[in-house]
Amino acid sequence: MNQSSINQLQLGFIGLGRMGAAMVRRIQQAGVSCVVYDQNAAIRQQLPGSVIFNSSLEELVKNMKAPRHIWLMLPAAVVDSVIAQLKPLLEKGDTLIDGGNSHFTEDIRRANALKAEGIHYMDVGVSGGVWGEERGYCQMIGGPKDHYEYLEPVFRALAPGADAAPRTEGNKGEPSPAEQGYLHCGPSGAGHFVKMVHNGIEYGLMAAYAEGLNILKHADQGLNPVAADAETAPLEHPEYYQYKLPVGEISELWRRGSVVGSWLLDLIAQEMHQSPDLENYAGRISDSGEGRWTSTAAIDLGVPAPVLTSALYSRFASRGNDLFADRVQSAMRHAFGGHKEKAADQGESE
Amino acid sequence: MNQSSINQLQLGFIGLGRMGAAMVRRIQQAGVSCVVYDQNAAIRQQLPGSVIFNSSLEELVKNMKAPRHIWLMLPAAVVDSVIAQLKPLLEKGDTLIDGGNSHFTEDIRRANALKAEGIHYMDVGVSGGVWGEERGYCQMIGGPKDHYEYLEPVFRALAPGADAAPRTEGNKGEPSPAEQGYLHCGPSGAGHFVKMVHNGIEYGLMAAYAEGLNILKHADQGLNPVAADAETAPLEHPEYYQYKLPVGEISELWRRGSVVGSWLLDLIAQEMHQSPDLENYAGRISDSGEGRWTSTAAIDLGVPAPVLTSALYSRFASRGNDLFADRVQSAMRHAFGGHKEKAADQGESE
Amino acid sequence: MNQSSINQLQLGFIGLGRMGAAMVRRIQQAGVSCVVYDQNAAIRQQLPGSVIFNSSLEELVKNMKAPRHIWLMLPAAVVDSVIAQLKPLLEKGDTLIDGGNSHFTEDIRRANALKAEGIHYMDVGVSGGVWGEERGYCQMIGGPKDHYEYLEPVFRALAPGADAAPRTEGNKGEPSPAEQGYLHCGPSGAGHFVKMVHNGIEYGLMAAYAEGLNILKHADQGLNPVAADAETAPLEHPEYYQYKLPVGEISELWRRGSVVGSWLLDLIAQEMHQSPDLENYAGRISDSGEGRWTSTAAIDLGVPAPVLTSALYSRFASRGNDLFADRVQSAMRHAFGGHKEKAADQGESE
Amino acid sequence: MNQSSINQLQLGFIGLGRMGAAMVRRIQQAGVSCVVYDQNAAIRQQLPGSVIFNSSLEELVKNMKAPRHIWLMLPAAVVDSVIAQLKPLLEKGDTLIDGGNSHFTEDIRRANALKAEGIHYMDVGVSGGVWGEERGYCQMIGGPKDHYEYLEPVFRALAPGADAAPRTEGNKGEPSPAEQGYLHCGPSGAGHFVKMVHNGIEYGLMAAYAEGLNILKHADQGLNPVAADAETAPLEHPEYYQYKLPVGEISELWRRGSVVGSWLLDLIAQEMHQSPDLENYAGRISDSGEGRWTSTAAIDLGVPAPVLTSALYSRFASRGNDLFADRVQSAMRHAFGGHKEKAADQGESE
Repeated sequence: MNQSSINQLQLGFIGLGRMGAAMVRRIQQAGVSCVVYDQNAAIRQQLPGSVIFNSSLEELVKNMKAPRHIWLMLPAAVVDSVIAQLKPLLEKGDTLIDGGNSHFTEDIRRANALKAEGIHYMDVGVSGGVWGEERGYCQMIGGPKDHYEYLEPVFRALAPGADAAPRTEGNKGEPSPAEQGYLHCGPSGAGHFVKMVHNGIEYGLMAAYAEGLNILKHADQGLNPVAADAETAPLEHPEYYQYKLPVGEISELWRRGSVVGSWLLDLIAQEMHQSPDLENYAGRISDSGEGRWTSTAAIDLGVPAPVLTSALYSRFASRGNDLFADRVQSAMRHAFGGHKEKAADQGESE
Repeated sequence: MNQSSINQLQLGFIGLGRMGAAMVRRIQQAGVSCVVYDQNAAIRQQLPGSVIFNSSLEELVKNMKAPRHIWLMLPAAVVDSVIAQLKPLLEKGDTLIDGGNSHFTEDIRRANALKAEGIHYMDVGVSGGVWGEERGYCQMIGGPKDHYEYLEPVFRALAPGADAAPRTEGNKGEPSPAEQGYLHCGPSGAGHFVKMVHNGIEYGLMAAYAEGLNILKHADQGLNPVAADAETAPLEHPEYYQYKLPVGEISELWRRGSVVGSWLLDLIAQEMHQSPDLENYAGRISDSGEGRWTSTAAIDLGVPAPVLTSALYSRFASRGNDLFADRVQSAMRHAFGGHKEKAADQGESE
Repeated sequence: MNQSSINQLQLGFIGLGRMGAAMVRRIQQAGVSCVVYDQNAAIRQQLPGSVIFNSSLEELVKNMKAPRHIWLMLPAAVVDSVIAQLKPLLEKGDTLIDGGNSHFTEDIRRANALKAEGIHYMDVGVSGGVWGEERGYCQMIGGPKDHYEYLEPVFRALAPGADAAPRTEGNKGEPSPAEQGYLHCGPSGAGHFVKMVHNGIEYGLMAAYAEGLNILKHADQGLNPVAADAETAPLEHPEYYQYKLPVGEISELWRRGSVVGSWLLDLIAQEMHQSPDLENYAGRISDSGEGRWTSTAAIDLGVPAPVLTSALYSRFASRGNDLFADRVQSAMRHAFGGHKEKAADQGESE
Repeated sequence: MNQSSINQLQLGFIGLGRMGAAMVRRIQQAGVSCVVYDQNAAIRQQLPGSVIFNSSLEELVKNMKAPRHIWLMLPAAVVDSVIAQLKPLLEKGDTLIDGGNSHFTEDIRRANALKAEGIHYMDVGVSGGVWGEERGYCQMIGGPKDHYEYLEPVFRALAPGADAAPRTEGNKGEPSPAEQGYLHCGPSGAGHFVKMVHNGIEYGLMAAYAEGLNILKHADQGLNPVAADAETAPLEHPEYYQYKLPVGEISELWRRGSVVGSWLLDLIAQEMHQSPDLENYAGRISDSGEGRWTSTAAIDLGVPAPVLTSALYSRFASRGNDLFADRVQSAMRHAFGGHKEKAADQGESE
């Protein structure tokens, strides 16, 4: 598609949170006309003047020519109610695009329901977070192929572009969409399915770094050996664990030339540069759905995902949800061996 | 071996903690003469008058006729120093028996070192805890076969006996040692190796019950749904989780007729009968070595043990040793998405 | 309830598979009149003559006096279609009891749907397998309290009774239902919810034993050390792993006096008595739903269940479902280090 | 250090495998004089003419001026024997550097033993694999600080340099060693300790990607639903799993703008570009020690590492080492429920 046909493209956009506003700036700058709405009118100040800001959904729909393409960038919990408000305003042939974090089964349900009314539905999993405006957004797209093709200039505008990573050896010619950072993955739900697994992997990657750095952090344990008792295994070889390792510098080190280099590691190095002990964080790790859904999909499919689910469970445990299970085990120890929690006893045996 | 030859058997015994004293009572009652020592002389009151109590290791050795068989029931950390004290007092042909919780590699080392001095060494893994005096002790034995045979009356006296469990279909005749609750497992270290794995399994069993009961405990979560935010996945179907389950009664229920019945479950039911919420336990689960060694052996051998090691790691986490790892992950979440720990944000995406 | 009122109780029963037929025999023997149906008429031979066998659902309903109580003991996949056939035959006030392995959310759905027609619904999770006729069945019951009370004689007849396990210290008086082996756990779905978690625990217990026995089985690895190469970590201490352990006898041994004694261990000993190497089993472990649902419930609730889910994933892996994941990792190893699968290379480093 | 003092540096180097030879080329090119030996004399052809190749260890030592610094780049299994051969040839004040994959406890032992003879010892964990010649090598260094400083030009020559990654915000001035890709981590063993954990993390990262891609690969399972039976849980919602996802293209897609971008992902995309199904790999994943040691260190220290150890165990399972455990579970299923492996039964219940 050449620039002049891009310039004729018009995109509706609802939801101008931190991420949505940044996306609109990138899209508008590429020459696509954005017609937008957010309940917070103040957000208008953060958009280029050429973007058409509307004060209601009705106005937004009126200000667009049919067939309309409207991108929703909303918290998963409100998508359905916004769709319900939009539906009576739309015409047959219009298209809604959910760019948030919906569960892929919701996409299947919505696409079927909207199809009955002649409205098209696409799902786009978007990765990039607050860095996306600068780095571009990686987009995983599901829905009808022809609508994907129509919207390709939008996806391309949002994508990081081929230069964002060295080309894979053997690839030739014009960079493929995947090489630019967007991909039509399949029918309705495929985009959010791939995004879901992407986030599931992310949980595993994060936990892998975290566990390794935690081991490094404890490598000085032999310098302060705890007295042995029957309740806690003593450190058998304190002489091996006498290292006060510069964990923050190590995260910086691994960014260059090592096998574990990654964007997540870049972020760790950044955080540790500011505060090597990360004492500002209590360590209660939130989770926002996709990690859970990934494990649930693995279970549905009978596919083992021990690393991804371990990472998820560590998050649950970090929030204290293992307390009763831990009590049960302490109680059992007490019952069979007279073990008090952390109290010595001579010649005890289980 | 008939009763008269049992009556000629003499057993030295060092270490009269709660478990050691109980064992001596069982052995002496079977007709074996016990010659014992403990640094705490007051323990003498808890032994039958026929037991010969000594006030020093020297006295104990002197009060025994060669070849001596001396059972050590001591914390793993002091076994080596007691052996060092005993060695100059012993004669060629004497035998030491370690009934504590030594690592099997220590047994191999000690057996080799003592062999050079003409002293025999046996290792016995003993299960039964504080209940053993009543139920009998399950014994896993390593070391030279002929010494095992000589000491069989002792093992038999300690064992629960064949009646402690229904006979396995197809077994006939005189109950085998295994059917009575003791077994010669192999050469030096084999006893403690089998005991180590026994405890490794025990960790897995305990965690399995604990996790399941914890799920039951949380089954009322839908009654108090938490407001959704971008940081925590909300409960998608609060209508499914509205059960206030009687967890204590359920542990009692499963003891009869169900597939998960076990002695550990008996103990859980006992503890929950006293206190259904187990609020006396902080849930900091100790571990005393064997669970660690089991996982290390699995790793050495290249054998997967995900359940056993997960159980072990849950114990570590229950003591807060995952804190820095959790902080690393919270920090990463902050870095890529501007996620605050537990604070909402609109339309965020990873 | 005294025996004469029990004798007036009538129970319909549909589904006389191995388990259903055995249950009917137990119920009828307790004095409750059973009016039964199974599509396989030959099963009639295995029932007492006093049981009223019917050749159709219609006949069964006709042969019962209202209000009817009909127990379904069917594969989970056909329960809904049998209910659909029964519904037009039933009257307001009749009760259906699902004793199979339904997902608890199905119970909630069915109870609501049937309530609209004035029909009651109860769910009973039944444990005991093919041994239940002899041992009795452990029953976890959900649904309206008054119907539970009405049917209590049936539950009591099926249950193992208080003598099946030693009484928990502190319990007094008439044994409670839980002490007899049945329990009203809560409203619709509560019975199957508790049974689901029961099976989830069972998966964990089974895997714990299996992993431990597998370590024992490999303890002879040092007798046949593999040559070291850059692709496989050699056994660092072959001298530690020289034990040919009698795994079958060990499973027998642990049944008496040890902490890990359980009914599942009894079964392992039985199987290993017949064939110590279990070479008749290919090791493709099936799973039948409850283990999956338990992990999914844990994930829904944000409760960590690493042991239970690890056990589930091991089953998936035993059926080869990890193949592509393994290929991905071999491919990565090849890509970064020129590692061939299992082929040596000098001085390689990751 | 300026270039003229670099030019006076001389480095001995033993072990010119694929990695060693590449490292020598990089070092020599930076102006350090390399005096090398490998048992394979043909390797000489792959080195610059200015490198001094020797035909024996004796010759190598003779061709160096004291105090000598000799880098060993050898398989871990032969390091000790080469050190034993070198020791009588060396003089007090000489230094050995182990750049291979030794366990950090070996470093501690060797450093102590060599110190007694007046010889210094350093350990360097080197990451970069076959790509290091082009990308540079990430180096984690342990041993005496003054020797680290003396050898810094060598480390700097091998390192990727600061340009290999974007600078962390807030860093200023001359790039630190960590920013260039090498770091003095602490006393003897610290280098290999950090490298060990680096590889442990790598195992976790690899498994996270592999599990996620495996889920994507199975997302078409609903297109070929398996008939339900009592032994295998059927796919409850085949309508959700109808995606034939382009897994190879997805791995390419995620390289740009997404949170999971990394060097390992670059390699996956490369491998999948050549063969999307990776059918050339049998999926028997090797492991070469560091992953095991990482988990063992975590266990020693009482630090949970569920993700890293799960990844390790998946490798063990990929090689079939879970077989007996799987048989035990199939046998149990048979015993309690009459379950045949994969064979239907009606109304069965566990």
